[in-house]
Order: sequence, then C-alpha cells, then structure tokens
Amino acid sequence: MAVLNDAARRLVESGALAHLVTLDDDGSAQVAIVWVGLDGDELVAAHLDGRQRKLRNIRNDPRVVVSFEANTSNDIGMRHYLVVHGRAHITEGGAPELLHRLAQTYVGPGTDFPPMPDPPPGFITHITPTRVGGAGPWTE
Amino acid sequence: MAVLNDAARRLVESGALAHLVTLDDDGSAQVAIVWVGLDGDELVAAHLDGRQRKLRNIRNDPRVVVSFEANTSNDIGMRHYLVVHGRAHITEGGAPELLHRLAQTYVGPGTDFPPMPDPPPGFITHITPTRVGGAGPWTE
Repeated sequence: MAVLNDAARRLVESGALAHLVTLDDDGSAQVAIVWVGLDGDELVAAHLDGRQRKLRNIRNDPRVVVSFEANTSNDIGMRHYLVVHGRAHITEGGAPELLHRLAQTYVGPGTDFPPMPDPPPGFITHITPTRVGGAGPWTE
Repeated sequence: MAVLNDAARRLVESGALAHLVTLDDDGSAQVAIVWVGLDGDELVAAHLDGRQRKLRNIRNDPRVVVSFEANTSNDIGMRHYLVVHGRAHITEGGAPELLHRLAQTYVGPGTDFPPMPDPPPGFITHITPTRVGGAGPWTE
C-alpha cells in the first residue's frame, strides 16, 4: 500500500508549503520552507544553490520530515495537517524546470520562474515517504 | 537584544500555526502542529494529555525548532517564514487556561475551549528562543 493516500497526494500538490526538517551536524533540527511536488511516489523539491545547509544535512543524514498545513479543521477547530517521514537523496540538474512547474501552483498560473536568464541546473531533493503522521484523512 | 523582534512577536501572536519539531530517541525529527502564544520572551504551548510523544521528546532533549508561515511574500512570490530555535521545558498545570486564550485567536473570538467539562490541568511547554531563521523581517 502506498504511504501517501489520495488525500495526502492532493494536499502535497495543492500548493501547501512544505516545512522541510533536516538534521544538523550536532543532531539538532533545521527547518526550511520549500515548494514540493510529486514525482510518482516521491516528494521532490528544487534548489538552484547547492550550498544550502539543508542539502549538506541530507548528504550527511538522509532522514527528513516534511509537514504541511491543510485548509480543513476537525470538529473543535484544530487544523488538519500532514507529516511525511522519509529518506531523501539529491540529484544534480533539473531545478529550473521543476521550479517553473511548482511556481504555476505556488505563485500562480503563467508565472515565469526562476526570474533570471540562464539559471544554473541546480539540484533536486527526492524524498521517499516511509510513514505519515499528523491529523486528517491521511492517518484515518 | 531580544531574539524575537517585534515583527516576529506579531507573527507568533497572529494565529499562525506552529510546526513544533522535537527529537525522537533515535535522533530523527518529530513534528506536531500546535497553537502557541507568547509569555514574556517565551513561546508557550498547552497540552491536556501529558503522554504525547513531543512532551516525552522534550524531556529527553530540550532542543526544539518551531516554524511559522507568514502571510507576506518576497518580490518573487516566495513566502516569508519564521524559524525559532530554542530550548524547551515543561511545567504542570494551566493548560485549559492557555488553550482558552489561544483559541480566541486560532479559532475565533468567543470560542469556548477546551470543549469539555472539567478538563485536566495538563502541561505547558515553555520555549526560550536562542536564535531565529527563515526569511522575512525577523532576519533582516
């Protein structure tokens, strides 16, 4: 059975911001908000700059967590949310194309992104989900 | 100088959801979305149930990170966000009162919360900010 059910997949592709948690050298958590999409069963994020701390962290320890706010709530007004635990790896190239695709959802249809001529090929983070948490139709 | 500037304090008190990251026994991250407010220079969250994993994690390792989405963006449409690194400790009692206060912002004015008679005294998580990150008027 897929780790992400249809409701989880819809949320990930809705333009909900991804709070990406990686682990620093000293074992503490580091959080960056990124745009993500789906590529088959993987979550994917794009980075033009390969020197970012989150990429260095993933190279050191592939365990990541990504959390997303839903726009629905439970009966007492507490917001639904999705937490995806997974293992990440990084590949080179393809960042401008993925950012362009994600910008159509995160910024709006017709967005020209990245907003620069000749962007670098960059890097893609691929996250294989291992389990989900949070509260909502993805844990029920 | 306070770790949280006025813009950061306003965001924390705006009803923005807090993605609270704690560390599991195996060193991986755990994320729960919670309501938070300010108590002086501390971030505070309330829990009716003391058996939650996030509380157990904080008792084992006080290093936490909390991330918040702002409702403003930069020039190219990327959302501002605040990341607060800090150290947490837990005290007993006071959870219903803090939840009631936070519900006025997170659910709406006049909300009766917790929605139960005789709620347990619960626990409060207190987070002392040590540094901020993210992107927005709190890091400039």
